[in-house]
Amino acid sequence: MPASPLENQTIVTAAILAIGDELLSGRTRDRNIGHLASVLTATGIDLKEVRIVADDEEAIVEALNALRTRYDYVFTSGGIGPTHDDITADAVAKAFGLPCEHDEKALSLLGDMHAKRGLEFTEARRRMARMPRGAVHIPNPVSTAPGFIVENVHVMAGVPQVFIAMVEAVVPTLRTGATIHSRAVKSPFGEGDIGTALGEVQAAHKETSIGSYPRYDGTTFSTEIVIRARDPQLCDAASQAVEEMIERIRQTKQATGVIMEA
Amino acid sequence: MPASPLENQTIVTAAILAIGDELLSGRTRDRNIGHLASVLTATGIDLKEVRIVADDEEAIVEALNALRTRYDYVFTSGGIGPTHDDITADAVAKAFGLPCEHDEKALSLLGDMHAKRGLEFTEARRRMARMPRGAVHIPNPVSTAPGFIVENVHVMAGVPQVFIAMVEAVVPTLRTGATIHSRAVKSPFGEGDIGTALGEVQAAHKETSIGSYPRYDGTTFSTEIVIRARDPQLCDAASQAVEEMIERIRQTKQATGVIMEA
Repeated sequence: MPASPLENQTIVTAAILAIGDELLSGRTRDRNIGHLASVLTATGIDLKEVRIVADDEEAIVEALNALRTRYDYVFTSGGIGPTHDDITADAVAKAFGLPCEHDEKALSLLGDMHAKRGLEFTEARRRMARMPRGAVHIPNPVSTAPGFIVENVHVMAGVPQVFIAMVEAVVPTLRTGATIHSRAVKSPFGEGDIGTALGEVQAAHKETSIGSYPRYDGTTFSTEIVIRARDPQLCDAASQAVEEMIERIRQTKQATGVIMEA
Repeated sequence: MPASPLENQTIVTAAILAIGDELLSGRTRDRNIGHLASVLTATGIDLKEVRIVADDEEAIVEALNALRTRYDYVFTSGGIGPTHDDITADAVAKAFGLPCEHDEKALSLLGDMHAKRGLEFTEARRRMARMPRGAVHIPNPVSTAPGFIVENVHVMAGVPQVFIAMVEAVVPTLRTGATIHSRAVKSPFGEGDIGTALGEVQAAHKETSIGSYPRYDGTTFSTEIVIRARDPQLCDAASQAVEEMIERIRQTKQATGVIMEA
């Protein structure tokens, strides 16, 4: 018999380290973090922390060493291109105390690709083959230059199309834990109306995590309530309790004539 | 005579701490970080680091203590609403070793607002008046419940409309440094074509920071090159050097008949 997903209660944790001055200056709005967050959640990996740092070796090394020792996996984005400000490979090598050098297999992949396209294999392009000694490639079906893996750190490109392709290549290789099930319940009432009662529902369903997310349409507040649990039955039970709570609040408001508003 | 902006070479640094399970699960795509990053850059404050953590007291306290001792300012978003999962006020109080209690002025503001709107001032709503003892309010023109400031930490709401309004209220109160000037130059050539030459331009213009951002349209790569410096003249000089470099590459490609491609 296959193991029930409920028997697998392993928790696998991860962090994302997004690297790039352009994210901190506001010039580029990050799109990779949200994408990978969704993919990890769906896969059964708990994203615990995200950091964004500049193209600064010391900052990258420090963040990487903090994250890689604390979480099962670290995923980085950005800084592995061919220009002088692409310093992620050097920083990762430094964090692990490894030499950063041209990888033979990567040189050959990139050399072939450029030859095929009649492009000069410039010094800048050769730079994309540099990685910490012994790193394992992450294939790049978009533009060839590979990402790489050192121990639990996965180093990927910052260009969203390439990042997404690399995530797709990496995910099947990861150890995963129990998926977190979630149910979303919409409340037409604001958090101020439901907060006290919702706290009681949370207290009565301790093995679930109930999150409350206010929405503002420019006039009134409503709330999205998200119930999360590793056990789908517990998730359903708490979700039903939340729905019943909303119904009770609706009836009380109708009975007392209080306007339904935040 | 007014001081020239160039005489003000003070550097003021900042970090953002975004708080919320929903950001880490991928359910909500953050919009606050990019907004504040742009505002800080325009204001003359260098955003050096961003962290995203869960609604978890220990994680918030640890990140906050790491960031507030390292940067001039810390800005947080999220977790100051009226529900049980809004624990930012408690975590900030704990980080500073202060009691977290109902603030009289905030209770009065919120009490008045709810009375005016004929809404019950529930226990949940009173929760929004809790903050570390002695905290200074950040006004909230959208939904009244204030953010707050403790020393160099600015605690703001997660709902984007409220966050933006709080940022607007806070920015004029901040000490600012020399604005970083930037110029963007578009290169029709990919990073592989320009990388070596661009590295030389960077080496010749050491007081500027030249960033290279690949763009991929699904077929070919182009590059946006961003030159940044506190001195606008140095910025212009480096920017002109980059433009001349692109022109040289264009002429070489035309002369050699090489296809203009990444």
